[in-house]
Amino acid sequence: MPTENIKRNGASRSWRDNLIDIEPYVAGEQKRSPRLVKLNTNESPFPPSPLVSKAIEGFDAEILARYPDPNAKGLVRTIAGREGLPEEMVFVGNGSDEVIAFAFKAFFNSGLPVLFPDLTYSFYPVWCRLHGIPYEQVPLNSDFRIGQEGYARGNGGIVIPNPNAPTGIAEGAEFFGRLLRANTDSVVIVDEAYYGFGAETILPLTRKYDNLFVARTLSKAGSLAGLRLGMGFGSPPLIAALNAVKDSFNSYTVGSFTQCAGAAALSDQAYYDDAAAKIIGTRERFTAAMRGLGFSVLDSSANFVFVTHPQLGAMELYEWLKARDILVRWFASPAKASSHLRITIGLDSEMDALLAAIEEYMQGKEI
Amino acid sequence: MPTENIKRNGASRSWRDNLIDIEPYVAGEQKRSPRLVKLNTNESPFPPSPLVSKAIEGFDAEILARYPDPNAKGLVRTIAGREGLPEEMVFVGNGSDEVIAFAFKAFFNSGLPVLFPDLTYSFYPVWCRLHGIPYEQVPLNSDFRIGQEGYARGNGGIVIPNPNAPTGIAEGAEFFGRLLRANTDSVVIVDEAYYGFGAETILPLTRKYDNLFVARTLSKAGSLAGLRLGMGFGSPPLIAALNAVKDSFNSYTVGSFTQCAGAAALSDQAYYDDAAAKIIGTRERFTAAMRGLGFSVLDSSANFVFVTHPQLGAMELYEWLKARDILVRWFASPAKASSHLRITIGLDSEMDALLAAIEEYMQGKEI
Repeated sequence: MPTENIKRNGASRSWRDNLIDIEPYVAGEQKRSPRLVKLNTNESPFPPSPLVSKAIEGFDAEILARYPDPNAKGLVRTIAGREGLPEEMVFVGNGSDEVIAFAFKAFFNSGLPVLFPDLTYSFYPVWCRLHGIPYEQVPLNSDFRIGQEGYARGNGGIVIPNPNAPTGIAEGAEFFGRLLRANTDSVVIVDEAYYGFGAETILPLTRKYDNLFVARTLSKAGSLAGLRLGMGFGSPPLIAALNAVKDSFNSYTVGSFTQCAGAAALSDQAYYDDAAAKIIGTRERFTAAMRGLGFSVLDSSANFVFVTHPQLGAMELYEWLKARDILVRWFASPAKASSHLRITIGLDSEMDALLAAIEEYMQGKEI
Repeated sequence: MPTENIKRNGASRSWRDNLIDIEPYVAGEQKRSPRLVKLNTNESPFPPSPLVSKAIEGFDAEILARYPDPNAKGLVRTIAGREGLPEEMVFVGNGSDEVIAFAFKAFFNSGLPVLFPDLTYSFYPVWCRLHGIPYEQVPLNSDFRIGQEGYARGNGGIVIPNPNAPTGIAEGAEFFGRLLRANTDSVVIVDEAYYGFGAETILPLTRKYDNLFVARTLSKAGSLAGLRLGMGFGSPPLIAALNAVKDSFNSYTVGSFTQCAGAAALSDQAYYDDAAAKIIGTRERFTAAMRGLGFSVLDSSANFVFVTHPQLGAMELYEWLKARDILVRWFASPAKASSHLRITIGLDSEMDALLAAIEEYMQGKEI
């Protein structure tokens, strides 16, 4: 039986010495205030589809007395039908964070290092540490894009978000096809958390590449961050391994209400297409305005932009905005991120308030 | 960096060889049919408190667009207030299975074997295998009760459900006080999933013993198995370690709806006391009737009973009942369980239907 773990010190005398010692992921602040302009955690500024409200109105509390369907079959059928995939290629979980946490445990057991960009979702190294998986971070190119070269070597798996976060830059199916042709011995996870804002999906490639796993969430484009519903797509052996991890952790990860409200949201693509089009329009206007103020703004295919200004300190601007009830995200590390701010695309009015504040700040600095 | 995992074979060439190889927990069937008498997964036959319905009616879908409070502070405050404990001694999760899965990872890192009964919740060995924690199963006494002796030795932790499942037998605070006085070097988890049906709680002992962790759920007495809300109680260092695991796995494990509906349920103790009294009454009547039919029935402090009959095969009776749309739980292993059935206490009418079916079966066998 394997006995290795994060910490191993059988000789220790106190239970305190055997508590886990791990540095967790730090999520963006979930501050609440009516005055707050909250542009720090990439939520949608729009409410979920009206069909979700209808589902809530019709939801009978009595259903909650029974366990949910542990395999969420109805929801899986809805998702599979929508994406034109067989049900055995679909997995659902308590947010895509749970789906990806399970995927790391299910897929990355070779002992070789898992590869992901050095500037990306900062939960990836945390999951590796949690599960005891070795990893190496591959530097982005100087233009903040992901290159193929760093991934062309023996590895225990590859994880790439598309679009990448916090850059917002997306690669196309051609990029991933090339990566997958070159990498046949380990599982490739493509995290499409920010799908729906202009990036090409590579979901169809799951039919061609048995070692490709795609994760999605309803937290961003789906306006359902508070519901906690994530999805995963891949070949039947990948989904079977994921289910084995889930069933070794928690038989019922997705509650009855979440299954019901999630299915309602997924049946209203027209509503979400319209909301995404508004967000994309706002993103393009905001990007142009920021560039007009001298900011460098990476071309985003997500619902956020990653910006920097040659004469402004990012942390200082972040703090100044925060004091004025405007929350954006600043990352202290890695170094190549700390000169930038990641700004969620909210309502037009919110972006206007942010632009006015930034202009005021720059005037104060005489820039 | 630790690289050990469930499976380690860096030399393998195929991604398939590096998928996890683990035997998951098998939950009771979640069959649905209007005719079905479902007495196999220890759900409550009663709906949740009317305050839960009210909370659903008043729940605004717009809230779901934002992430939930990652620490569920409002819900934690409600629970802490109810139990008279400080907030830093309370943890919540996506069902008590998640809470306990996190607890194993957070507390059991000594490399020494974790101890639990050989007849108990069969998820405990699965969590150990998932996390790579060594374990040993301590035989119950011949009367199906938990003895102190088997736990009086060096260990990486102790896990005991109270009441135990599937026996239904509870031990008192005196038993656990003795266990805790003898076991000061590792964390003791007491799983109170079936609290509320007559067993004494040992929650107050968390103030006295810093190495005691108590888990609870709303899935049983709370009539909210479909909601997924579990709770954990312990000293601040235990809760801090749990939060470190949670934040290394999924920042937002408890959705906004669950936080809202859970708080509503927890504010209506009178409703649940009444429901539990009914279940206890039904349990006592059913126990007497089964004994009248020649069954041996362990004295239960839970919402289920564990029964056996000297002249009846448990598996055969289980199958016969299932064919007649009555679902109870039969465990193929361990050997000492396979001659028994675990029967959830449902409505009086459901228990009457079961009794009538069993009588019919026995008449057919001429017993």
